[in-house]
Amino acid sequence: MAKIFAYSIRKDEAPYVEEWKKAHPDVEVEYTDALLTPENANLAKGADGVVTYQQLPYKADTVEALHEAGISKWSLRNIGIDNIDLKKAKELGFTLTNVPVYSPNAIAEHAIVQAARILRQDKRMDDKMARGDMRWAPTIGREVRDQTFGIIGTGHIGRVFMDLVEAFGAKIIAYDKFHNDEVEKKGYYVDSLDELYAQADVISLHVPSLPENIHMINDESIAKMKDDVVIMNVSRGDLIDTDALLRGLDSGKIFGAVLDTYEDEVGIFNANWDQKGVPDARLDDLIHRDNVLVTPHTAFYTTHAVREMVMQAFDNNLLMIQGKEPNTPVTL
Amino acid sequence: MAKIFAYSIRKDEAPYVEEWKKAHPDVEVEYTDALLTPENANLAKGADGVVTYQQLPYKADTVEALHEAGISKWSLRNIGIDNIDLKKAKELGFTLTNVPVYSPNAIAEHAIVQAARILRQDKRMDDKMARGDMRWAPTIGREVRDQTFGIIGTGHIGRVFMDLVEAFGAKIIAYDKFHNDEVEKKGYYVDSLDELYAQADVISLHVPSLPENIHMINDESIAKMKDDVVIMNVSRGDLIDTDALLRGLDSGKIFGAVLDTYEDEVGIFNANWDQKGVPDARLDDLIHRDNVLVTPHTAFYTTHAVREMVMQAFDNNLLMIQGKEPNTPVTL
Repeated sequence: MAKIFAYSIRKDEAPYVEEWKKAHPDVEVEYTDALLTPENANLAKGADGVVTYQQLPYKADTVEALHEAGISKWSLRNIGIDNIDLKKAKELGFTLTNVPVYSPNAIAEHAIVQAARILRQDKRMDDKMARGDMRWAPTIGREVRDQTFGIIGTGHIGRVFMDLVEAFGAKIIAYDKFHNDEVEKKGYYVDSLDELYAQADVISLHVPSLPENIHMINDESIAKMKDDVVIMNVSRGDLIDTDALLRGLDSGKIFGAVLDTYEDEVGIFNANWDQKGVPDARLDDLIHRDNVLVTPHTAFYTTHAVREMVMQAFDNNLLMIQGKEPNTPVTL
Repeated sequence: MAKIFAYSIRKDEAPYVEEWKKAHPDVEVEYTDALLTPENANLAKGADGVVTYQQLPYKADTVEALHEAGISKWSLRNIGIDNIDLKKAKELGFTLTNVPVYSPNAIAEHAIVQAARILRQDKRMDDKMARGDMRWAPTIGREVRDQTFGIIGTGHIGRVFMDLVEAFGAKIIAYDKFHNDEVEKKGYYVDSLDELYAQADVISLHVPSLPENIHMINDESIAKMKDDVVIMNVSRGDLIDTDALLRGLDSGKIFGAVLDTYEDEVGIFNANWDQKGVPDARLDDLIHRDNVLVTPHTAFYTTHAVREMVMQAFDNNLLMIQGKEPNTPVTL
């Protein structure tokens, strides 16, 4: 009987582990809520593979400890492999899998909802309600359907977002170096970013943080945009020059911003600064503006996504144990 | 040359009045920001018709004063005619129009966005961010696409809302005494409210406040719903028994609520209680819950809707002046 041992199963993941177990009565599954460390790698002894979440760095000592426990098939429940000693893993004969796509809809749904909230001035209206000021004016909304959305990047998430924007009845223009056939057929592509900046009421970024994209939203590009533009970043923090964004917000050029990511977020997001105070003045400034919505990189964080991460990781691990090609291998 | 005089043109309406004027160079248009009163009805002297917004009661003295100013063609920019002395208007030979439909999308967009916010626990996450608590857990979201939406009432707004829910990929069930052909074709109707309550994760009300609908959401109907149900009311306040709603929220049966309307809202919404305090303890309680989103009947309040209200009212007035049938007459 095949056996899989899983580390760091959180409360919100456990029901999906149980669901996977139920669907695979021929596989023995054991798990712990502890993060994998060199000290507890031996918990996996006797298993044919492990499932983990990459949160702590997995340095050489962790990889070696897993190897000593007899493990060589390793499945991550997330996408990130930055902090794993891949060289050591390769040297010790590991095969590794991750979960690169868990729910583009999680991010796309979040993006359209946040865009609508900015257009509606919802944060201002909610603030007014909390104070007991229930007057309508001047907190009037713009409807999504009346806007032109400029979508930069038409990969997986960009296209799911595009479908939602389309359903609201908004006009769509798109820019990408690599044209997607369906988007091309719909005639959405413009020839240059300048053209997109000149026409879009809402600009949403869905590109990777390649060197040429870093700080693509800067003083120069903002100057090319329409007045009252809404800027959205649910992709990578370094796509936006935060100082330029703040200047655009201060001048009133930018109507509002949606940020699920921030260029200096590492070490700040997914931590609690309640007592200590937010250790970044620009981020603190952005959070408290009534026309900016900041979330701590949680656009992905849905029950659907978490379930996918669990299911796909266990599926991958079992495929490796069965000597088959896993669905999403990591090249070592 | 035909002449229209308009009262109580707000700052956000003026651009649309100018737009209408430009499109009708053969019509003289004058307007004031003052509300129509018996004292200033004579401002309309010499005009062929008036355009107003029903905000103050228009009692016999106002109607008489308009009549004395030589006016008989009267177009409202809104739907409500409750506070107009219609008997007097009929007696004096007035013809009256209103604007019954200005933007179902304004309300439908607001509804889907607020639903997503409750499902995502956005208010909790926003509260956390404002305090500097940027931890993800336990503020995990549910995706719209994974829910079953129970739509009660498949009239104009209910159907626009349905289209948006459909675009997110959610499952839809609907209930209405009067079946709409398109909704019927899609197979969305269930046979009873009980069936809808038993299956829906999100329940949204789009029915008028007829006697049989008043307090349709009460202890009994809530008991029939699924655990963690989301209840939405962007229609009429008296559809919900507020005490029952509060009990359902307190017990944890109800996951959250979206309210753009409240049964005791008259005299409270669209006023400022910032200094005095909200004069309704139940409303104040609802506003400050982290799983309830209350807006002061502003779901309709968009630039699109305001433009429609202006355009349609002027169109109606001109049709009457030209001796034609207006688009949306009020039967006196």
